[in-house]
Amino acid sequence: MNDAFRRAAEAKDADGMAAALSPGVMFRSPVVFRPYEGREAVMGLLSLVVEVFEDFRYVDELHGDQTTCLVFRARVGDRDLEGIDYLRFGQDGLVEELTVMVRPLSGALALARAMEAKLEARAEALS
Amino acid sequence: MNDAFRRAAEAKDADGMAAALSPGVMFRSPVVFRPYEGREAVMGLLSLVVEVFEDFRYVDELHGDQTTCLVFRARVGDRDLEGIDYLRFGQDGLVEELTVMVRPLSGALALARAMEAKLEARAEALS
Repeated sequence: MNDAFRRAAEAKDADGMAAALSPGVMFRSPVVFRPYEGREAVMGLLSLVVEVFEDFRYVDELHGDQTTCLVFRARVGDRDLEGIDYLRFGQDGLVEELTVMVRPLSGALALARAMEAKLEARAEALS
Repeated sequence: MNDAFRRAAEAKDADGMAAALSPGVMFRSPVVFRPYEGREAVMGLLSLVVEVFEDFRYVDELHGDQTTCLVFRARVGDRDLEGIDYLRFGQDGLVEELTVMVRPLSGALALARAMEAKLEARAEALS
């Protein structure tokens, strides 16, 4: 499994993250049930996530058959959280599925609120 | 890494789960920030989690240096959720740290409410 996604995420490099994703990537957020589909839609969200997470760092990496777990710690405002990026790779080495989970609930709720504020600000800027 | 915890969790075998845990195990729940410490306290919670999760099954397994991720799907009431058991093993092969994360937020909230109801029912039964 290549580490292009990890390196780009650590560098907060949006272009590098996009290049590591399959064009048809599916993103399952820690917050909403419905997956986001396609590199453009997913990067629209990930570029905001990168702004919302402070002190973001990966602390462990695990490997499965075609999957990788990247365990991270981060802060959203005054809430500490830990989480896992669960990646599934295609034959071409690009990320086909990215599922993110976080804990505890206070951190997930802080993330949801921060993302909602970012999405509203973007919608206003576009309107 | 031994698979005693996985086999016991799949069988909903509380004694088997307890035997796979270190006496000083730390449990970080998907809901609350504060970790639970010690086999007895942790099993008090896990025995309720087993009751709350319906259609529980592991769908992937990943390995790190001294860590394992077990990816699961489950249902709480009418809410589907997916989650990861993140295990850290000691030299003796027992689970020293168990961290659980779930998504999406609707599933985490349903889990929190179901656990709260179970804990209240237990407190009433003991009073």
